[in-house]
Amino acid sequence: MEKGEFELIDWIKGQFMVPDGVLGIGDDCAVLPQRDGLETLVTTDMLVEGVHFLLEDVDPYSLGWKSAAVNLSDIAGMGGKPVGTFLSCALPKTLDDGFLKGFFEGYKALSDRFDCPLLGGDTTSSLNKLCINVTVLGECVAGRSRRRSAAEPGDLICVTGPLGDSAAGLRLVLESAGYPENTLPCGILRERHYRPVPRIEEGMKLAATPGVNAMMDISDGIGSDLRHILEESGTGARIDVRSLPLSAELRTVCARRGWDPVELALNGGEDYELLFTCRPGTEVPVQHTVIGEILATPGLHWEGTDRDFIGFHHF
Amino acid sequence: MEKGEFELIDWIKGQFMVPDGVLGIGDDCAVLPQRDGLETLVTTDMLVEGVHFLLEDVDPYSLGWKSAAVNLSDIAGMGGKPVGTFLSCALPKTLDDGFLKGFFEGYKALSDRFDCPLLGGDTTSSLNKLCINVTVLGECVAGRSRRRSAAEPGDLICVTGPLGDSAAGLRLVLESAGYPENTLPCGILRERHYRPVPRIEEGMKLAATPGVNAMMDISDGIGSDLRHILEESGTGARIDVRSLPLSAELRTVCARRGWDPVELALNGGEDYELLFTCRPGTEVPVQHTVIGEILATPGLHWEGTDRDFIGFHHF
Repeated sequence: MEKGEFELIDWIKGQFMVPDGVLGIGDDCAVLPQRDGLETLVTTDMLVEGVHFLLEDVDPYSLGWKSAAVNLSDIAGMGGKPVGTFLSCALPKTLDDGFLKGFFEGYKALSDRFDCPLLGGDTTSSLNKLCINVTVLGECVAGRSRRRSAAEPGDLICVTGPLGDSAAGLRLVLESAGYPENTLPCGILRERHYRPVPRIEEGMKLAATPGVNAMMDISDGIGSDLRHILEESGTGARIDVRSLPLSAELRTVCARRGWDPVELALNGGEDYELLFTCRPGTEVPVQHTVIGEILATPGLHWEGTDRDFIGFHHF
Repeated sequence: MEKGEFELIDWIKGQFMVPDGVLGIGDDCAVLPQRDGLETLVTTDMLVEGVHFLLEDVDPYSLGWKSAAVNLSDIAGMGGKPVGTFLSCALPKTLDDGFLKGFFEGYKALSDRFDCPLLGGDTTSSLNKLCINVTVLGECVAGRSRRRSAAEPGDLICVTGPLGDSAAGLRLVLESAGYPENTLPCGILRERHYRPVPRIEEGMKLAATPGVNAMMDISDGIGSDLRHILEESGTGARIDVRSLPLSAELRTVCARRGWDPVELALNGGEDYELLFTCRPGTEVPVQHTVIGEILATPGLHWEGTDRDFIGFHHF
């Protein structure tokens, strides 16, 4: 490691409060005391320049925010509470200190919002592209984490918020590179793409609710993500596309540009809302929309449309 | 994700036994039950093509082995037992299935040796370079993990095995690209570089021994790594370079090539032996060599040489 890297790590270390009894950045490992009746959750995701993001299209603060957010969203998808994160970065020499500072400010802002400190990591150089890996540890009352495999025939299928905003925001960025349209709806959709808010509180409330069965976060688009629940649970589903929650901003921008909001809602990705199933009659403690029903026989049936939707591909 | 990627993940999943009660690959998160009186250890490291390895110089099996080994070594450096790993890979499209299979076979061989399953991860594409990130969770009896900050004046400074072999192995590879010298000593040194064995059992025994104070693994070379212990502990040290453990293979190859074995032992890196300090009179339960002593006043003094040694740089 070079001197500059130690300085960077010291700076990062100074940015994060670490709870009593926890050993964070600065040794071979972080150490977390364990407590009774809890499960540890772990998730990891890699973000690669040119694949998941383009440096010319994203500001460093948003990239830092999103790197943490998409990983915390996986903890939300299990119903857990994030405990700490571990961040690895391969940094091209062309990135300046201003970029790194912005990145970590965004990363920290999202982390602070959910009281989830950075507890460790690794920084190294990269010959050309920026590569970011985040691992999150979370915890959950033992037995409460919600799996993809727990959907039951007759369950209602629900989502916690509007779909398609992030995909529309990305499309706005890509189609108007250099000349962003600065109307309020466009700004809101771009914000949904760049600074998603993981549904941590919602996930924890849902995990504490009897009758909530399968759960996951929506990262690839409902058309793709729901299939995971169906495969793991050995069930099918019908989705009424007319019931999909669409934001006013999405409707406005789609009407103006001739885009199909339903396609963006189903086939787009990166909404980071929660997708869950629950027994009819469950008192669901968070805002949500019912979009369909789990069926005993395999197969995914779209109602209110004559098309099929297969989800978002990073590739 | 593409179909080929799911097949890859299914194949990987089939390769690893997961303990009862643990949820591994296939959901948003891995879930690990917690038990009383234990601490969780977490470490993460990123390996980047062109920075940490060159694809033309390393076989896939060794790259997989080493990716797991260098991370488990950080668990060994705390005195912990590895519990599971999380692997992220950004894969250039130029890598073929044979490469990936070899990589995972090597990764699995090292993991199996220490009974440490792969519990999760992420695979994505990369525009050009291969990037690998490994996170390891480990555990330790509460209060037993050995920190860098615990060295005390008067402690003996010890290492668990020979130093410099890996650095010599790397130098052999780089200086004889395409025409490796296939004598036995050269093969052994290259093996030490490509397939290091983390000192897990040794670390656990040392962590269970009263009188063993500070500990870490040797990844950057003793000249650099020891400084971490001294800084964190607020102490100094004297090292007698004449007492450094040098393997017969290192002496043989160095004599033949006119290399300085002491420089390789101190200034080279990637030995992945353990560096620890203990009170004089401690009954140390593992093979080791005493190489110096912790001093009350800051500063690192080399005895038996007139030079300074500053450690290995990846950069």
